[in-house]
Amino acid sequence: MGNKNNIEIIEIGPRDGFQNVTEFIPTEKKKEIIERLIEAGVKRMQLTSFVSPKHIPQMQDAEEIVKYFINKYKDIRFFALVPNYRGAKRAFDIGLREITYVISVSEGHNRANVNRSVDESFEELKKIIEEFPEMYVNLDAATVFGCPFDGEVTYDQVEQYVKKAVDIGITTINLCDTIGVANPEQVKKVVENLLIKFPNIEFHIHIHDTRNMGMLNSYVAIESGIKHIQASIGGMGGCPFAPGASGNLSTEDFIYMLDKIKVDTGIDFEKLLSVAKECKKTIPGVYSGHHINIDENLICSF
Amino acid sequence: MGNKNNIEIIEIGPRDGFQNVTEFIPTEKKKEIIERLIEAGVKRMQLTSFVSPKHIPQMQDAEEIVKYFINKYKDIRFFALVPNYRGAKRAFDIGLREITYVISVSEGHNRANVNRSVDESFEELKKIIEEFPEMYVNLDAATVFGCPFDGEVTYDQVEQYVKKAVDIGITTINLCDTIGVANPEQVKKVVENLLIKFPNIEFHIHIHDTRNMGMLNSYVAIESGIKHIQASIGGMGGCPFAPGASGNLSTEDFIYMLDKIKVDTGIDFEKLLSVAKECKKTIPGVYSGHHINIDENLICSF
Repeated sequence: MGNKNNIEIIEIGPRDGFQNVTEFIPTEKKKEIIERLIEAGVKRMQLTSFVSPKHIPQMQDAEEIVKYFINKYKDIRFFALVPNYRGAKRAFDIGLREITYVISVSEGHNRANVNRSVDESFEELKKIIEEFPEMYVNLDAATVFGCPFDGEVTYDQVEQYVKKAVDIGITTINLCDTIGVANPEQVKKVVENLLIKFPNIEFHIHIHDTRNMGMLNSYVAIESGIKHIQASIGGMGGCPFAPGASGNLSTEDFIYMLDKIKVDTGIDFEKLLSVAKECKKTIPGVYSGHHINIDENLICSF
Repeated sequence: MGNKNNIEIIEIGPRDGFQNVTEFIPTEKKKEIIERLIEAGVKRMQLTSFVSPKHIPQMQDAEEIVKYFINKYKDIRFFALVPNYRGAKRAFDIGLREITYVISVSEGHNRANVNRSVDESFEELKKIIEEFPEMYVNLDAATVFGCPFDGEVTYDQVEQYVKKAVDIGITTINLCDTIGVANPEQVKKVVENLLIKFPNIEFHIHIHDTRNMGMLNSYVAIESGIKHIQASIGGMGGCPFAPGASGNLSTEDFIYMLDKIKVDTGIDFEKLLSVAKECKKTIPGVYSGHHINIDENLICSF
């Protein structure tokens, strides 16, 4: 692997994972899992999302979670997802100073997801940046690799989108494979071109494992120059509406692979795996992780 | 991807997949699945294994399956796994002219798997080659990337093993990641070195998805020069003793990925997916495939 230094894993399970669980996870349970993730060495984490509690009741304890963690762990970089101005204000009011706002690259998905056009979303993002100058605002670029409504998304569309974001002051952009359709050549092309075109922007990658390419595409992203990989404990999450479907790239599976190729992220695989197993045991949800199912005492033949 | 021409997918589900199913799959059901795989475009397939029916009752219909298919489809390259001379003789007697014999690279696994030393296995392989000169004999090299008993397997061990095989006349060797511990840098190193050292040997790769690296390692193998990938319909199989664990690389998931990067294998993804779904619906087993779980009508948000 060419670029294996300074790879950062960003844990998103407490948001993207938990958010997709139907049954409410007790706040104390969430806290326990998040604390254990920190003990395992996670240094940057998406804690929750400030969405309408009516729309997504699972995230109704956003304030409590954020308040608890930002006060207790000063050296961990916490952030939360916000779908709109209202969410940003809630995050700010509780004392959080880093958020992620979501805009899809494709019109179809943006309308379905947040009920407005891409331009309207960019207007709102601008307003958030202006009204909360102390807030660090990341941008989640949804449907970078394909849209369930509009189909193919071209590199040119992505580049124009990124330019628009950069023009209003965004410096961190998360390339999201929202529906898990990215392929390795596409990831390579998009990442390599964006890194050349926008050398001062911090790009992340966020790959859903829907079509079994979470591990492959995230690996290829690193080979193409990406330094920040988003992953979810146990591979939780990904898509709330497909019971049997796969979730996100599993953090512990990815850490195992990185360990094997001698990429040190500061995260302890065994500790992380035990957190993932605890999640699987106690939280009913979608799990894409493989290690959580392995019984090391059983030996395969042939 | 550098070497994307002439990639061949070898379907192993009817052996490695079915063999790991506890409940006996009716022979007619097996025939139906195999015929549908052929209709989907599969041209080379591991049909069954000639093992002791007492040891693995699932494969008790090996003769019937082989006889049916070798007579009906003359243009498909069928082969079967044999663990010993007795299996080779059964295969020969029923009219099959291509088999795969298994020897582990590591002593510990070979003893556990076939109850003899690696040298004793090579002696038996030599005997099979000599006694059945009309038989094309492939060699499955188990534990190339790691052994559950002996731990790490070095490249030098693998090279010595291959040399030994080549010296007795083997020309096709399947590099098996029996317990799913291979990592991409190891795959690259092993494959690239073997291809340089043994340019006239046809190497296959067979990656178990135990640790979520079936797709990644198989992709890296192709990038490193491998032309023959073994995969199992639905991702069935892999390890019979771990109920929750993952199986093999799923043929349909891999074909989807190859289609996306414009590698044409002659196999139709949609047809293959429908066979995988039929397997999942009617055969209780371990399925690593992801596409079989996707409901395309459901849309993911955020």
